[in-house]
Amino acid sequence: MSEPIPIVGGTGALGAGLAQRWARAGRAVVLGSRSAERAAEAAAKLREAVPDAAVEGLPNDEAAQRAEVVFLTVPFRAQSENLNNLREALRPGQILVDCTVPLAAAFGGKATRSLGVWQGSAAQQAQEMVPDGVTVVAALHTVGAPGLADPATVLDEDVPVCGDRKADKARVARLIELIPGLRAVNAGPLETARIVEQLTPLLISVNVRYKTHAGIKLTGLPDGDHWQ
Amino acid sequence: MSEPIPIVGGTGALGAGLAQRWARAGRAVVLGSRSAERAAEAAAKLREAVPDAAVEGLPNDEAAQRAEVVFLTVPFRAQSENLNNLREALRPGQILVDCTVPLAAAFGGKATRSLGVWQGSAAQQAQEMVPDGVTVVAALHTVGAPGLADPATVLDEDVPVCGDRKADKARVARLIELIPGLRAVNAGPLETARIVEQLTPLLISVNVRYKTHAGIKLTGLPDGDHWQ
Repeated sequence: MSEPIPIVGGTGALGAGLAQRWARAGRAVVLGSRSAERAAEAAAKLREAVPDAAVEGLPNDEAAQRAEVVFLTVPFRAQSENLNNLREALRPGQILVDCTVPLAAAFGGKATRSLGVWQGSAAQQAQEMVPDGVTVVAALHTVGAPGLADPATVLDEDVPVCGDRKADKARVARLIELIPGLRAVNAGPLETARIVEQLTPLLISVNVRYKTHAGIKLTGLPDGDHWQ
Repeated sequence: MSEPIPIVGGTGALGAGLAQRWARAGRAVVLGSRSAERAAEAAAKLREAVPDAAVEGLPNDEAAQRAEVVFLTVPFRAQSENLNNLREALRPGQILVDCTVPLAAAFGGKATRSLGVWQGSAAQQAQEMVPDGVTVVAALHTVGAPGLADPATVLDEDVPVCGDRKADKARVARLIELIPGLRAVNAGPLETARIVEQLTPLLISVNVRYKTHAGIKLTGLPDGDHWQ
């Protein structure tokens, strides 16, 4: 049986949207929240939307121990606190997929602007904060929560994935590509998250102007599976 | 008759590629260079490739006076020098389209990394340096020179356009969309060039990994002409 997919911050918009898509694709998910009660509520809600969903709701630190690949989908202003809380939970060999975007909106600024993070990006900040032996991969910054949440929305976009080892990125890519319409693209080392995290405020700027939920695609990539 | 399209730095790879595409689309172009001789050579070369091309080669400052919308396609390390040289040439009411990307490669670093520009972006630096009344629009960072240069390459990508007034961006968009396969997308105010200029090192990172010339597309945009 496949490992479940734990989502720290799984009660937020992005986490819940991903969970719903993975559940529809037949994968077990574990929704993490700071509050066990809110996690259970979110799990019940997902079971309503996807009746055969294999879903649990757990406190974040317990959720993070349920599989080797763990997704972190919290807002930037909560990223450090969450990573502090996960220090005792994460074990060497795990992959933490950081989806955080340092929007200036986190501290009252515009959602079309970003904050400077000393380490270069939210993902690099995460890499600095996780226990030794835990590897951070950055992904899923540009996939909009509204589209994920609405089962009628047909997704058709790329997901740039950043990380220092291709094997780690490939594991994450396999999970991302369980969601129909998402293609994971190898965007480079973790430091490239500096750029990829900026795609979100760019898309927000486009969304405002076109009254849409834009996504991103890379053209000119050869066909076939590049994660083998 | 339409105004010609002047390209400061028109003998470089991006400038020459754009010139060729515009010439094939039936537009007159003016290739600017620091050297009148090199400009004339580049014009002759373009006339060979596109026999009915209406093309002139002129020193940059003369080229910049030939139309209201002027493209600047020089490498980042030459941007300031070129803008200094254009101070006496540019007139109020002109639009300077800055295509500069501050790649770290400009000073011996990696092409997958960028330099921090004090003003926020190369385009904002350009806005600071042009004479009063000249407006900078940023565009064409992500369109690869090799694809432009090869007439057999079918282009199919988006061009994020940044600028503070939609009317200015629309004028530039009309010129960009003369090139078949390019769609100009309103990416936001000029400050958004901070992000858009970063797309180039991102695409270079992808190109290295996929051995391709990737471009960018935005999904989810409504159909129709958004520049009216």
